[in-house]
Amino acid sequence: MVNVGVLGVGTVGASVVKILEQNADIIEARAGQKIGVAAGVVKNLAKERGLSITLRDNPLDIVDNPEIDIVVELMGGVEEPYMLVKRALQNGKAVVTANKALLAYHRYELQALAGDIPLMYEASTAGGIPIIGALRNGLSANHIESIQGIMNGTSNYMLTKMINEGVQYDAILKEAQDLGYAEADPTFDVGGFDASHKLLILASIAFGIDAKPEDILIEGIQNITQTDVAFAKDFEYAIKLLGIAKKVGNGIELRVHPAMIPLSSMLAKVDGVMNAVMLKGDCVGETLYYGAGAGGDATASAIVADIIDIVRGNTNPMLGYKKPLESGLALLSRAEITSHYYLRVSVEDKKGVLAEVTNLLSGLDISIEAMMQKPDDDKDECVELLFVTHECKEKIIQDAIARLEKLSVVVGKVGMIRIEQ
Amino acid sequence: MVNVGVLGVGTVGASVVKILEQNADIIEARAGQKIGVAAGVVKNLAKERGLSITLRDNPLDIVDNPEIDIVVELMGGVEEPYMLVKRALQNGKAVVTANKALLAYHRYELQALAGDIPLMYEASTAGGIPIIGALRNGLSANHIESIQGIMNGTSNYMLTKMINEGVQYDAILKEAQDLGYAEADPTFDVGGFDASHKLLILASIAFGIDAKPEDILIEGIQNITQTDVAFAKDFEYAIKLLGIAKKVGNGIELRVHPAMIPLSSMLAKVDGVMNAVMLKGDCVGETLYYGAGAGGDATASAIVADIIDIVRGNTNPMLGYKKPLESGLALLSRAEITSHYYLRVSVEDKKGVLAEVTNLLSGLDISIEAMMQKPDDDKDECVELLFVTHECKEKIIQDAIARLEKLSVVVGKVGMIRIEQ
Repeated sequence: MVNVGVLGVGTVGASVVKILEQNADIIEARAGQKIGVAAGVVKNLAKERGLSITLRDNPLDIVDNPEIDIVVELMGGVEEPYMLVKRALQNGKAVVTANKALLAYHRYELQALAGDIPLMYEASTAGGIPIIGALRNGLSANHIESIQGIMNGTSNYMLTKMINEGVQYDAILKEAQDLGYAEADPTFDVGGFDASHKLLILASIAFGIDAKPEDILIEGIQNITQTDVAFAKDFEYAIKLLGIAKKVGNGIELRVHPAMIPLSSMLAKVDGVMNAVMLKGDCVGETLYYGAGAGGDATASAIVADIIDIVRGNTNPMLGYKKPLESGLALLSRAEITSHYYLRVSVEDKKGVLAEVTNLLSGLDISIEAMMQKPDDDKDECVELLFVTHECKEKIIQDAIARLEKLSVVVGKVGMIRIEQ
Repeated sequence: MVNVGVLGVGTVGASVVKILEQNADIIEARAGQKIGVAAGVVKNLAKERGLSITLRDNPLDIVDNPEIDIVVELMGGVEEPYMLVKRALQNGKAVVTANKALLAYHRYELQALAGDIPLMYEASTAGGIPIIGALRNGLSANHIESIQGIMNGTSNYMLTKMINEGVQYDAILKEAQDLGYAEADPTFDVGGFDASHKLLILASIAFGIDAKPEDILIEGIQNITQTDVAFAKDFEYAIKLLGIAKKVGNGIELRVHPAMIPLSSMLAKVDGVMNAVMLKGDCVGETLYYGAGAGGDATASAIVADIIDIVRGNTNPMLGYKKPLESGLALLSRAEITSHYYLRVSVEDKKGVLAEVTNLLSGLDISIEAMMQKPDDDKDECVELLFVTHECKEKIIQDAIARLEKLSVVVGKVGMIRIEQ
């Protein structure tokens, strides 16, 4: 019998307990041993949870308990679980965590500390999709060229609704909050921060690259308008919040932002709360992994799979490398990122304005691939100029946006969405 | 240094040699040791291959060689590789094989023989897509409910062309043969046999169920016409050659056949030579895995990943079970399969014919969900009657088809395509 202790018995923790009970037959056959949850830790012992397991309110009752073999960390937060996971590893216990924030900040320290003790985290990224296994094991023969992922269900639900139903951002956010898909403060999801944590985890396995959220470009979906949606449709693009890690020469671009992607791509077809990740390797080419990125049972599916792997005796290096990798790859600064850009500029509807805007762009060596003009539905006596640029550097486009917003004929903020071919 | 011996150095074998050389840096970092191909076996030593490795023409020079740690079997065929893989395992060598036919016939004997010696086969199914790992490790917490896979690139290429370009089967087959996508005798691919081997491998991991190709329903794409394609488009279906494994009560349906699937499904969007597999589990829900199902480098990506897993010391049970599984699940006979069916019946264009056909169907308790009539473009003075049935048993629909074909008003063969919702 393998004894599991669960730190944090909320929705996901309760699903872990349930799956280990309901699927005990097949789990024992696959793992070779019986596996059960011996104890769980909650903050409030008084709350009725309808669970058959022993509950405690002190995490050390699990972390220091010699009868617990595997600690499952589902607390959330960063520093408290970091302390507890370290202590569990020091006590020789295998650890499974779904905590993406913990890993976004401390994965390298944890890898060093874990050594040969299993520290697994399939559930941290894209929920039930076994993307960590795919990247760490399935594609291990490849130099990874790029990762593109739809890794936040809330944002994808909202963008899908904006595109399919033509509703503005604010109305959809309200609906998503009413449905429980978005938090009262939705910034973590719609601002791209959640996706950035997952991207950093994948980038470590793919490229051996260390970075923290504050090191990379993170933009959310808050400024997307129905003008952008209509333009994307006309030009056969979908708009998705993507986490992107891409090798460019000896540099690695890491970025999270809304992107226009061709409607014909598999990622464009991932709608609603679903997640998907496209991994491109130098041998295998493009592969895609699709499934539920959240939800108690889907997340618990990944956690229990990690537990089974530990019980089977698998010995995967935490971040995929048994030896230090001398890749020569370095994180590119935000300014050095290159992309095609879509720009939305609202201007006063008068003579010479188009020339003024296009002169500014050409003066910065920004070359225009496509352009259209339409009335601004929100502002009287204004028109919106929509541009697609050829590839250029992020620093140049940011300079252009700052200069455009200073022109007297430009009204309000310039909208920008990067285009991924 | 880990020494690999390759039995069969064709396109895939040459890619294995190339990848282990070109990606040696990252492979050593991930595996923890250097890995190289020490020797390969070919039938014709005289042929120039431009490879740096030692070549032999006797497989026993590898299988019995104490300096070889891992044997990679890429010979094709069944009985000769079976003998050699057994001998390699008896010699204590880990084995990696891409040989789906070997596994379709001998996977259970090989599992018993291998015991704790690694016998890996990621490349046998869906090429570079890490579907074995996803099912055996990633979804191990789940009772699997169904597998639906596009697992033959040749057939999918041909169906995509038939649908997108409106060309008849024979013309596309010729083109696929000219391009090298189809063999001179294409039956193994277009007849569904290739996909059946892969399906049987996946079904063993998912359900612990033993079956051989001759035990299951296998139909190919040879009888699909442009009438069927047009009907599918009108009713918003794609037509795909699917391998299906599905739990129905305590029974398992295993079948390979063309199927109409909703255009909105992710599988419907998998075009050309690409493969994809949808796995549905009781915890995780639907997950999909997409990528190249063939090609030297993509297949070698999976083979080298298996080698790395072996070197890392992973200890996955070959078919996913450390202990025998008492699932109580049994293979359903072909006759017991249930589905919705599309039927195409070419009839003489005269009074009373529709009534005769519909009376026959209703006399067998086959209930009609949709029906349309159109002129038969190939036969003068004939019309085609197209039906979609409600769910019914395979034995009833087969009986109906046999009776329809005996009616004097029915001209030629009745076409039938199963519908997967």
